[in-house]
Amino acid sequence: VCLQAKVLYEFVAEPGNNELSVNEGEIVTITNQSIGGGWVEAQNSRGEVGLVPEDYVALESRGGFRPELWRVSNLSFLFPVVLLHVRYFQKTNGSDPWAAFTTDASGGFSNNWAAQPQGTETGRTSTHEAWSSSVQSHPQAYQGPGNPDSEVPRMFPGFSKSGPDLYLLSKQGPKGKEKLPIYRGEVGPVWLYPEGQLDCVVADPKKGSKLYGLKSYIEYQVTPNVSVFHISAAFGPTLKRLSLPAADLLGRFEEEFIKMRMERLQGWMTRMCRHPVISSSDVFQLFHSYKDEKDWKTGKRKAEKDETVGVMVFSVIEPEETLPDLDLLEVEQKCEQFSRFTKAMDDGVKDLLNVGQEHWKRCTGPLPKEYQRIGKAFQNLSSVFNSSGYEGEATLTDALTAAGKTYEDIAQMVAEQPKKDLHFLMETNNEYKGLLGCFPETIGVHKAAIEKVKEGDKLVAASKITAPEKITMTKRASTMSYALQAEMNHFHSNRIYDYNRVMQLYLEEQIKFYETVRLSVSRWVQSISVQS
Amino acid sequence: VCLQAKVLYEFVAEPGNNELSVNEGEIVTITNQSIGGGWVEAQNSRGEVGLVPEDYVALESRGGFRPELWRVSNLSFLFPVVLLHVRYFQKTNGSDPWAAFTTDASGGFSNNWAAQPQGTETGRTSTHEAWSSSVQSHPQAYQGPGNPDSEVPRMFPGFSKSGPDLYLLSKQGPKGKEKLPIYRGEVGPVWLYPEGQLDCVVADPKKGSKLYGLKSYIEYQVTPNVSVFHISAAFGPTLKRLSLPAADLLGRFEEEFIKMRMERLQGWMTRMCRHPVISSSDVFQLFHSYKDEKDWKTGKRKAEKDETVGVMVFSVIEPEETLPDLDLLEVEQKCEQFSRFTKAMDDGVKDLLNVGQEHWKRCTGPLPKEYQRIGKAFQNLSSVFNSSGYEGEATLTDALTAAGKTYEDIAQMVAEQPKKDLHFLMETNNEYKGLLGCFPETIGVHKAAIEKVKEGDKLVAASKITAPEKITMTKRASTMSYALQAEMNHFHSNRIYDYNRVMQLYLEEQIKFYETVRLSVSRWVQSISVQS
Repeated sequence: VCLQAKVLYEFVAEPGNNELSVNEGEIVTITNQSIGGGWVEAQNSRGEVGLVPEDYVALESRGGFRPELWRVSNLSFLFPVVLLHVRYFQKTNGSDPWAAFTTDASGGFSNNWAAQPQGTETGRTSTHEAWSSSVQSHPQAYQGPGNPDSEVPRMFPGFSKSGPDLYLLSKQGPKGKEKLPIYRGEVGPVWLYPEGQLDCVVADPKKGSKLYGLKSYIEYQVTPNVSVFHISAAFGPTLKRLSLPAADLLGRFEEEFIKMRMERLQGWMTRMCRHPVISSSDVFQLFHSYKDEKDWKTGKRKAEKDETVGVMVFSVIEPEETLPDLDLLEVEQKCEQFSRFTKAMDDGVKDLLNVGQEHWKRCTGPLPKEYQRIGKAFQNLSSVFNSSGYEGEATLTDALTAAGKTYEDIAQMVAEQPKKDLHFLMETNNEYKGLLGCFPETIGVHKAAIEKVKEGDKLVAASKITAPEKITMTKRASTMSYALQAEMNHFHSNRIYDYNRVMQLYLEEQIKFYETVRLSVSRWVQSISVQS
Repeated sequence: VCLQAKVLYEFVAEPGNNELSVNEGEIVTITNQSIGGGWVEAQNSRGEVGLVPEDYVALESRGGFRPELWRVSNLSFLFPVVLLHVRYFQKTNGSDPWAAFTTDASGGFSNNWAAQPQGTETGRTSTHEAWSSSVQSHPQAYQGPGNPDSEVPRMFPGFSKSGPDLYLLSKQGPKGKEKLPIYRGEVGPVWLYPEGQLDCVVADPKKGSKLYGLKSYIEYQVTPNVSVFHISAAFGPTLKRLSLPAADLLGRFEEEFIKMRMERLQGWMTRMCRHPVISSSDVFQLFHSYKDEKDWKTGKRKAEKDETVGVMVFSVIEPEETLPDLDLLEVEQKCEQFSRFTKAMDDGVKDLLNVGQEHWKRCTGPLPKEYQRIGKAFQNLSSVFNSSGYEGEATLTDALTAAGKTYEDIAQMVAEQPKKDLHFLMETNNEYKGLLGCFPETIGVHKAAIEKVKEGDKLVAASKITAPEKITMTKRASTMSYALQAEMNHFHSNRIYDYNRVMQLYLEEQIKFYETVRLSVSRWVQSISVQS
């Protein structure tokens, strides 16, 4: 069987190796799928035939997406926030982990707020992000380094594409689906939080490669913490492995880089686990509970048939009966408020990231270098004075040497400090930047639903919908509104938790820092007092 | 009487004001000296006649120098170190107070280590440095801003011009001059230090102007501290005024600028007072003791007749009899050692000044700006969070506000710190840079004297000198050597004293700084603890 396939990434054939050069976006025909070892045989429009890496092409017969991609798209349409999270992860955990908050392209000390490998992130081996054996997101959705604020290409059709109509005017609800309740909490509409919370531990990064070393990646072990998980407890602590592509890392940064990626993966998994709707979703639970490949494939096939994707996700959401029906004016105001808030927070977060990035650069670059130079200047003067041949230099030269050493100590402290506090402040803000960037679309689909409801009478008059359909539509818009409010409340409570935690950590580390520096200077005093 | 005069500075006539434009170096004829108000009438080589500021021309009939200049030149030849000091003062207290340690001409944040007025130092009103009513040094000896390391034009013929021969081969010693003894101290040959030390207080700066406002200056009050002065105690605490030219200062820097110049003048006067040879010199004592203009003029006339200038100053120096005669090898070694030491210290001091200047710029510029921006980013996020409409924000927003205020406090502390410690470190090193820059010449004349002595036998053989002259020459070279050693020991002891003092001050201020910052951060903790 000959299948059409779209080339996902440029591939340059090695001469004499029976390979075929292909360009991104090119349509080729797969002439042999059974080559094995990660290769397929393809023919281009000029009739040339050769081997191409399997992962570099997307078979049209699979609906344009590989199943691995579909899995994520399924997950992403389970609920808007999943889309947010997937987007966030794309933005910040892509092949360039720094891209999302790299805004300074002026070419200063470093383009990134940390002196992390950057140039190494380009090239063939790093354009992939593979979640082997579980989920795989699409590389085209990544932002390239240096262009962090450009529009993310959409791999998953979002709300804005279909609009709310599909859901608002659908004939029937989902069959046999467990409903996701929203109830009235202290702060307003809230999700139902499960008694036991899903949790997982990301650890033990290992380097691996496939395609005969053409693609290298880092595999992380993900251990679901089932002791607190009320659903899949029966399955026991199965070890899963998630992998992220490994760039050709600079030796001395590699360890730090992998650690940071692991922390980010942990952060993302924890955020997913913390979300009551996502954590109770079939696909997410499947990932946590599957024991072997067979389990995974069975569950996957079931999940693939799920039709509650895109805006249809709202069809499984059920606000409690005690919650009143839609109040158009109130919902519009809420939407406005959320919109204003997320926009303002987005600005604030970006501002903090920008100044934090600058500060990081200064603290790890010029500032400690300067302290070192001051230290060296003091020590140098000390040895010059020692060579004077004049008696009674000791006290002064000891003081100068002590000053020199103190400055060298301070240099080191200053350079190491950002990793201890600013790092976490940056990471948290970076996470929130990713989350906030997805709100406009979520809010947009709600606004569209409200507009639709406003037109209800006109649509009935024009016989475009029936009067009962209008009533259903209004009720469904109400459901959407409660879902948004529940999600916003979830966002707020998480935000307060996250920022409280990071600010406390930041503060504690700042105190430690100044205390340590003060101590270091005091030791300098003592070293002189002992002498004089 | 028509007098020839040399134009010292370019003067551009104001049209319709009966003035004459003249160029630096031009020879004009003074056609009327009695114009008054600081003006004279002059005629140029083309026959044009007009008014020129009196201070802009040097009358040839006065020997090419105005008496005021002569006074300094007299003082400067009293002893090498005076030349050093005068040079130093020219270098660092000239019309551009920062020129001496401005080495960064790359046009960064500021060309000077402090954001002090610089551009304002150019122009007609600031090319002068007038010590009105007492001593006046010459503007040509100043270094222009931005070219700090260029050779200082000599106004006073130095050692290197005449060489040591004038003294080594002079027929007779000075008549009726009090001798300046050198005796054997613990550290080697030392000056005789007077029992009571001359001292003075520079204070009370006042702005004045002459030439109808064409030249403005700052006048400082100098009060000799006679209570510890054994010679002029009888005269009582007469108030003298020294003036330095005032540039057209930028308003907000003026006060700081004047204060700094006052401190430098104080530093210089103290250094003069501390030197046993200088402080006991006729001219210096005259300045301290004169009661009125008549006193000054009488003393001045006497001082003007002093012939012990240049190398002849060694003729009034008398090593104690217990000090052995010249050992050529030892003296050569000493010279070498002094030379190496002063060169090494010069390098060390310049290095410290350079890095200190950079640090100053960073601490007063980008660093506090960054802290302020971080503070604002925190405070901004705090107000965004306050607008969420979600309950339970207070703890977090209080923490963020406190963080913001703390960072603004830190910004201020960082920006103000250099004035409290780095300033004095810079000033001390700057003073020493000036002093060290003059040693090569001093050491050079000694080396030349040694060479001359080495040639002694040859010169006798060639009948260029007599055998007794050779003996005298050797003895005089010995005197020069002891003088150099006494001066080096004086330099060393002052250096240890000065650097000990400034390092202690620096250290104390550094501890205070870090303690204050730590306290500020702790207060931030408290403000949160109270809340939560």
